[in-house]
Amino acid sequence: MPHVTIPSNLPPGVPGLMQYRPETGRPLSSLAEVLLRTPQTLSPSERELIAAHVSALNECRFCTYTHTEVSAQQHPEGRAWVDKAMADPASAPISPKLKALLTIATAVQNSGRDVTEDMVAAARKEGATDTEIHDAVLIAAAFCMFNRYCDGLAAIVPPDPASYVPMALHIIKDGYSTCATG
Amino acid sequence: MPHVTIPSNLPPGVPGLMQYRPETGRPLSSLAEVLLRTPQTLSPSERELIAAHVSALNECRFCTYTHTEVSAQQHPEGRAWVDKAMADPASAPISPKLKALLTIATAVQNSGRDVTEDMVAAARKEGATDTEIHDAVLIAAAFCMFNRYCDGLAAIVPPDPASYVPMALHIIKDGYSTCATG
Repeated sequence: MPHVTIPSNLPPGVPGLMQYRPETGRPLSSLAEVLLRTPQTLSPSERELIAAHVSALNECRFCTYTHTEVSAQQHPEGRAWVDKAMADPASAPISPKLKALLTIATAVQNSGRDVTEDMVAAARKEGATDTEIHDAVLIAAAFCMFNRYCDGLAAIVPPDPASYVPMALHIIKDGYSTCATG
Repeated sequence: MPHVTIPSNLPPGVPGLMQYRPETGRPLSSLAEVLLRTPQTLSPSERELIAAHVSALNECRFCTYTHTEVSAQQHPEGRAWVDKAMADPASAPISPKLKALLTIATAVQNSGRDVTEDMVAAARKEGATDTEIHDAVLIAAAFCMFNRYCDGLAAIVPPDPASYVPMALHIIKDGYSTCATG
């Protein structure tokens, strides 16, 4: 049961919290929209994978289920691609650049102070731009927030991963702003 | 030196990052504005203290210096009040409710999963409302993001705490949106 009284007509997880307190829900959903969905050199699938990777490290089931699904639904190889990348980025069929950015995201998940110049140089060597490095750090940092927000208020987490498919399709069609407005 | 090239005319710390990437700077500054400055039953000083407390736990010097200063400048007892609360919340002259909310924030800093029903019940016993509990969790979670954003990109951190006073006064006068727009 959530630690605050969320009306029963609101959705589970972070979207329910965003609609419970729309004053904070609006900037939170805008941040997710810019980071994960606006056109960038990293595909939405790749950025969602960074979000899912950090959420798994933080053991936040709601965000892990949501963002693996949103990533999978937008990748030509679907769930198989995401599952390999989530299980072991090093051996997964993802680009060397994305591997280097996931290494940075893994550091950020523990502490911003863990990101080293060597990690950044390794990402640059694989072609990462300043914007890609900036966004990888901020996506990882933002999910350290979303994960804590979700679990810190004990938001409801549907246990069946299949139940995240309609929400993922809704996000892909209409964007994250829909999470804050219902 | 920051991990990405921040133009030298931009300010240090998080405001410089917000202006470097205004698309994300706008929702980030809006979130800080709502959480820390809009009229609420917790005073701005108290909410800034939660932000400073979490930033200190994350060892983020820029955010700790900034938010202790913004808290101090808005409290009748100024720096003395903040210094006691930062050194030891349990013995500090802060309300039992704020102490209980700082206990929740301390848990969130490690993991959202560390917040217990007993912690929430203790806060309610001291009069905390649903909105106060929600906001304390989200402030703590948000600073787990801001701290990682700042240090993960190795943003410039002015070493002298006194140099944070003008920025704090600027935030108090004009709000956090000024951090993203310059």
